[in-house]
Amino acid sequence: MIETRLDLDRIHAARRVIDPVFLNTPLYRCDALGRQLGCDVSIKLETANPVRSFKARGTELVASLLAEQGRTGVVCASAGNLGQALGWSGGRRGLDVTVVASRRAPVAKLDRIRALGAELELVDGDFEMARERAVSLARQRDVRLLEDSLDLETCEGAATIGLELAGSPFDAVLIALGGGAMATGVGYVMKTLAPGVEVICVQPSGAPAMTRSWHERRVVTTESTDTIADGVAGRFPIPAVLDDLLAVADDAVLVRESSIIAGMRMLLEHTGLVVEPSAALGVAAVLEDRDRFAGRHVVSVICGGNVDLDAYHRWVR
Amino acid sequence: MIETRLDLDRIHAARRVIDPVFLNTPLYRCDALGRQLGCDVSIKLETANPVRSFKARGTELVASLLAEQGRTGVVCASAGNLGQALGWSGGRRGLDVTVVASRRAPVAKLDRIRALGAELELVDGDFEMARERAVSLARQRDVRLLEDSLDLETCEGAATIGLELAGSPFDAVLIALGGGAMATGVGYVMKTLAPGVEVICVQPSGAPAMTRSWHERRVVTTESTDTIADGVAGRFPIPAVLDDLLAVADDAVLVRESSIIAGMRMLLEHTGLVVEPSAALGVAAVLEDRDRFAGRHVVSVICGGNVDLDAYHRWVR
Repeated sequence: MIETRLDLDRIHAARRVIDPVFLNTPLYRCDALGRQLGCDVSIKLETANPVRSFKARGTELVASLLAEQGRTGVVCASAGNLGQALGWSGGRRGLDVTVVASRRAPVAKLDRIRALGAELELVDGDFEMARERAVSLARQRDVRLLEDSLDLETCEGAATIGLELAGSPFDAVLIALGGGAMATGVGYVMKTLAPGVEVICVQPSGAPAMTRSWHERRVVTTESTDTIADGVAGRFPIPAVLDDLLAVADDAVLVRESSIIAGMRMLLEHTGLVVEPSAALGVAAVLEDRDRFAGRHVVSVICGGNVDLDAYHRWVR
Repeated sequence: MIETRLDLDRIHAARRVIDPVFLNTPLYRCDALGRQLGCDVSIKLETANPVRSFKARGTELVASLLAEQGRTGVVCASAGNLGQALGWSGGRRGLDVTVVASRRAPVAKLDRIRALGAELELVDGDFEMARERAVSLARQRDVRLLEDSLDLETCEGAATIGLELAGSPFDAVLIALGGGAMATGVGYVMKTLAPGVEVICVQPSGAPAMTRSWHERRVVTTESTDTIADGVAGRFPIPAVLDDLLAVADDAVLVRESSIIAGMRMLLEHTGLVVEPSAALGVAAVLEDRDRFAGRHVVSVICGGNVDLDAYHRWVR
């Protein structure tokens, strides 16, 4: 019995609330990529949907709940993808969605948040500054604050990915690690339904707070972050999420920026996918430790595809 | 009652034979792309699978049948995608697959055919030359010749895309037109289950044989082709396929090369998808006739993503 905040029945129930456009995403073997990496590689593709990331699985739950409760507004801080997802899910249910983001977030993400009809407030500083501002904004307006990874719906939404993986035979799943919603959600389902699958979290060396915390089994914060993987660049791990991660992850590894870029390039060349840096973390992890994965079958969750194309082309060129 | 070679019961039955990795592909609205095109645009994504095109829906049927019959070999001519798909489907069932292709086909397609374990024979000349060579090769070896669009399995496989579209509300479907398997297959299902949906076939001006044939209601051939959309560049329409197309298509339009390139660029910028030229024909059709589609909801089938990246970057730059 794995002791976390998650519960399998609730995750199964979540699937009934989430719009089907976000469910049953492609899971397929990429031989060309596997040949390059020296192992069997399957992709779980979370970008072929209206918000181009997995985050709507969670925001569908939150927005449904709020609409049921007759609430009218919701606020979140976002690195960019959660804001789009909440904009989509909230907008379709008549909720006023406010997103607080860093002014340094990718323009593509900010533009799409606005295009979805959400109110966007930008802060100077990083994602943690946006989180602080979102807290005070929600209090001031007396509306629900959605906190990624802390709020169980975000983990349960992500966990539905795990349900879609659990029936397939493979050896390890590589999950981008930021706040921890996806890692704890998918990890919990794997450890419950397919305990033989190794759950490996991957974070950039330039934003290592949660990975360090996992290894030291206590919250470790950092002064700053320095990575192109904007989607996972937090500094303050949430204690409850760390506890869950300690219960479900088999490992947490850090990868270099150069490996993330090489991963993006390989995903473009060998799978034809334009992905954001966070989505290349899994491939980066294989690149940095080929021996560990040699001959095994790994699944990499391609978690998001929202990227500024100019920056992307600069990276992969 | 629509008189074609196709039959709805057989198409439903086909779904039970096709590997699920090729079924229930993403169908989702792309608001960013729609805003650029002045209409609602949904994408039916046929590239997120092991062969990166829709063709395996058909080859799964053929290969299953041959395996059941105890046959050991199969030959096809291919512009590149059918060969990969047959390589995948035949390879998994222990069949010896031989693919005949033009030496001018994209290197990426030829490499992947070989990587799938198929025997690849290259001919000087275009796809029609490959077709001729495949006919004699099959006769010589006394093995099944798979003829794209003529052989009903290729149409029935493609038609399963139609089953996945028929439940959704939209106004028109844009289908790349080459030999006609996808257009007749999807078109037949739409006209049977959702007759209000306009079925529009799109072909490059540089390879207009089937479109001209459709308009003149008789087979019209061309001396040559001149298009980057290698997947649809045939010169000799098949009479039986033309008859089916006349029964199910509402229109067939030709688009310029510059529109195909603009379409590929828009799909990259606004949906993050790297597609081959044939997959951009639908967007190209909207670009060339915005008034026709203004305010309507169109579905574009993104039929393939096998493209030489060097050429791709040259086009979309």
